[in-house]
Amino acid sequence: MDVTLGTIFLSEVVGSALLLLLGGGVVANTLLKGSKGEGTGWLLINWGWGIGVFVGVIAAYSSGGHLNPAVTVGVIASGAEEFVPGVAVSFASTMVYFAGELVGAMIGALLMWLAYKQHFDAEEDQAKKLGVFSTGPQIRNPLWNTITEVIGTFVLVFGVMAASGFTNAQAEGGAVNLGWLGALGVALLVFGIGVSLGGPTGYAINPTRDLGPRIMHAILPIKGKGGSDWGYSWVPIVGPLIGGVLGGLAAQVLLP
Amino acid sequence: MDVTLGTIFLSEVVGSALLLLLGGGVVANTLLKGSKGEGTGWLLINWGWGIGVFVGVIAAYSSGGHLNPAVTVGVIASGAEEFVPGVAVSFASTMVYFAGELVGAMIGALLMWLAYKQHFDAEEDQAKKLGVFSTGPQIRNPLWNTITEVIGTFVLVFGVMAASGFTNAQAEGGAVNLGWLGALGVALLVFGIGVSLGGPTGYAINPTRDLGPRIMHAILPIKGKGGSDWGYSWVPIVGPLIGGVLGGLAAQVLLP
Amino acid sequence: MDVTLGTIFLSEVVGSALLLLLGGGVVANTLLKGSKGEGTGWLLINWGWGIGVFVGVIAAYSSGGHLNPAVTVGVIASGAEEFVPGVAVSFASTMVYFAGELVGAMIGALLMWLAYKQHFDAEEDQAKKLGVFSTGPQIRNPLWNTITEVIGTFVLVFGVMAASGFTNAQAEGGAVNLGWLGALGVALLVFGIGVSLGGPTGYAINPTRDLGPRIMHAILPIKGKGGSDWGYSWVPIVGPLIGGVLGGLAAQVLLP
Amino acid sequence: MDVTLGTIFLSEVVGSALLLLLGGGVVANTLLKGSKGEGTGWLLINWGWGIGVFVGVIAAYSSGGHLNPAVTVGVIASGAEEFVPGVAVSFASTMVYFAGELVGAMIGALLMWLAYKQHFDAEEDQAKKLGVFSTGPQIRNPLWNTITEVIGTFVLVFGVMAASGFTNAQAEGGAVNLGWLGALGVALLVFGIGVSLGGPTGYAINPTRDLGPRIMHAILPIKGKGGSDWGYSWVPIVGPLIGGVLGGLAAQVLLP
Repeated sequence: MDVTLGTIFLSEVVGSALLLLLGGGVVANTLLKGSKGEGTGWLLINWGWGIGVFVGVIAAYSSGGHLNPAVTVGVIASGAEEFVPGVAVSFASTMVYFAGELVGAMIGALLMWLAYKQHFDAEEDQAKKLGVFSTGPQIRNPLWNTITEVIGTFVLVFGVMAASGFTNAQAEGGAVNLGWLGALGVALLVFGIGVSLGGPTGYAINPTRDLGPRIMHAILPIKGKGGSDWGYSWVPIVGPLIGGVLGGLAAQVLLP
Repeated sequence: MDVTLGTIFLSEVVGSALLLLLGGGVVANTLLKGSKGEGTGWLLINWGWGIGVFVGVIAAYSSGGHLNPAVTVGVIASGAEEFVPGVAVSFASTMVYFAGELVGAMIGALLMWLAYKQHFDAEEDQAKKLGVFSTGPQIRNPLWNTITEVIGTFVLVFGVMAASGFTNAQAEGGAVNLGWLGALGVALLVFGIGVSLGGPTGYAINPTRDLGPRIMHAILPIKGKGGSDWGYSWVPIVGPLIGGVLGGLAAQVLLP
Repeated sequence: MDVTLGTIFLSEVVGSALLLLLGGGVVANTLLKGSKGEGTGWLLINWGWGIGVFVGVIAAYSSGGHLNPAVTVGVIASGAEEFVPGVAVSFASTMVYFAGELVGAMIGALLMWLAYKQHFDAEEDQAKKLGVFSTGPQIRNPLWNTITEVIGTFVLVFGVMAASGFTNAQAEGGAVNLGWLGALGVALLVFGIGVSLGGPTGYAINPTRDLGPRIMHAILPIKGKGGSDWGYSWVPIVGPLIGGVLGGLAAQVLLP
Repeated sequence: MDVTLGTIFLSEVVGSALLLLLGGGVVANTLLKGSKGEGTGWLLINWGWGIGVFVGVIAAYSSGGHLNPAVTVGVIASGAEEFVPGVAVSFASTMVYFAGELVGAMIGALLMWLAYKQHFDAEEDQAKKLGVFSTGPQIRNPLWNTITEVIGTFVLVFGVMAASGFTNAQAEGGAVNLGWLGALGVALLVFGIGVSLGGPTGYAINPTRDLGPRIMHAILPIKGKGGSDWGYSWVPIVGPLIGGVLGGLAAQVLLP
């Protein structure tokens, strides 16, 4: 076995931490008082998350760079027998992915807070402080917010599967390992989902991307923080998991 | 025969649906009331359509990822004998492409509406609601609007043909299948056409990208919607078809 | 001889026309009254020129995609013996490149004007109309404006030479023809020069990119146009030619 | 020995000069009075630095394109025995890298000043003039500013190491030299760090990127300039060096 479950865990921790450090960072840069990027807006935010995925997937390539339980369940739903060569799909290995994704997201949020510590201190708006950590809806409605997250995550997982179809075809032909270019493709996909489908809910499209930082928001001594909005917290967990499963199933049916 | 007409249809439906979901979505994000991207503007819109092409072409690679009747007629005009290996150019196969492109565009517009349902409900401006679905001219004039669409589509189809020249040369050399990188090239091309030539008419450059969502605007129960502007609807059909044919013919003459 | 001088001419015409159509188009989109991109600003403009280079170089690959006399003289200054395999560097072949670059730029400007015809008619500011065609300085001073153009063009030609070093090394190794990826590299380079060095003069960095459209501005029946500012026209010719020669010479000395 | 220390020095000078010319240039374009990009903001700035890295790394490929003492110490900390094939890691070779990086940064800042000479003359705000050359904190606090620089540089060096893991794996497989695509990966990484982590301190993440231009600000006859803020100058030196070492060490431990 080339890759152990310990390697999987570590790999997902490292990749998820980088994702949340850069992803949370760009929101802090745009929202928090006095930051150089204050008010730059939605396009900047999408680039930050896209490059966060790029770096995170590169760093986590030994575990396949899921960084997201919705991708993990999507891989399962697509009928895969192994996550990576030598690591069979099982309850235990799935839990290792989930744990790495959650722990990494928490660490990334912590590092982001340290990088922007003084701007969290200077900012007085509690909603902005929470908004740097976790997603929130523009118009609160559990059903429609969930639908938006389902659709966004469906595009993510289905798109990853379609791109992997290319990669596998190439691997069979023995031609070339595209390396970090595969990470770039996924990064552009996430960038595009945010650009196009992030408007209503801020595109969690990833349960641990939202839950990990929300936990950190609750436990870190952030100056003048408000509540962590736990009432909404299940939406960016349930929606992405449904979307991920649907994306994996659709890939089985619709992709050649 | 590796690829059946049923596969062609399904492939074009899936790819076109993803294109319209992300393409329509970014317009919704920029235009509709209360969305996180509200007011971000033209550059964001171009990225959304560009990545929509990227994802759509990747997902539709078994049919060549036309997603656009102007591309289909351009391929015919360029003198190709097969759309993809095993699928001859004929009236029947052309109609299958057109049908898949139209149905997919309608499905994508439906999903986009669901993702932004609450923001359609909150928005009061009827022109913005229609503008999320279909294109409209800044200065209405059938002749000049058509000319703009012809020029934009010419660049699209001619550019795709030129890029395919590279790809074919590589395929003959047996070196490497660039996979999703080809999709990225087309995505950047569409992004650039929007950036540079989208100002007067909103760059349909694709008959079904405009007609499919316009039909959906007419039949969906969108709260407080106005008319679907059928008087303009022929321009983004006729202009792109002319531009596509011209692009395919020019590719025969001007490209080595 | 695989490539004739006629092919060179046609190739440079086609590529330069696409460059000016998209490059001029994005300026029209940002500047002219009522366009959808009106007021989007400098970043949009840079993307338009970058993708214009991308498409133009792809379409003109049989002549090496110069599209710019500064690149042509830079290639000569770098000590090359052939422009492309079978086409020797000579006075005649150089003139063919120059002619193709100028004619193509004029055709591209014409097509751009047709695409934005109604917005040229609606716009009342004469300076904006000229600004869509040709470059102009923010602070008029022939010496310093020339220096800015020299530096920008130096980066372009030196950067192209450095990137070609990679490509040649790969070609010798027989590994892979990067195809349109090489065009993307040059496109990003031009994008970056505009982003970083375009502030004072609008980065002509290309004599025919400025002269061709300026001639068209003078002869086309543009409604309500003003003068074509011929007093400045030599700066974006002389500066880029000096910069191109310096870039080619520096490449010989500084690159391995 | 294929590469001499003289080649290393020259290569780092050339690459660092291009980095600072484009990186400083974009800040000038955004900040200085009357420039075409004035007020475009943070996203434009990040693209300028990203493409500066792209061009600089391409031009400096014979020395590995460090352009940054934090990368040099990160390579050492990662346990490498050679900087490039034939150039052993030693005190002497490290000093050659540092010297090339500093001299190049100074030359690049000089060229940037020449390109924007008139806009420096027109600008009256002394803080803006210094801000074009060197970084400064939004909220001055040596400890927290250093922490921000440590985190940003950690991401840079760790990310470069992770991406190199891919490249090395490919090189061993003998498949393909990705050439300038590797430079693009690093460029996107720097772009993303600026987007996400540049808010508090302006992301030096590179000692000579800050020190070289600061020296030039002090010695050049810039019209109406103020002080060079030497009190802050150690932060963008110490922070990046710590971050680079941590990134190199972490790569040894965390990457497969």
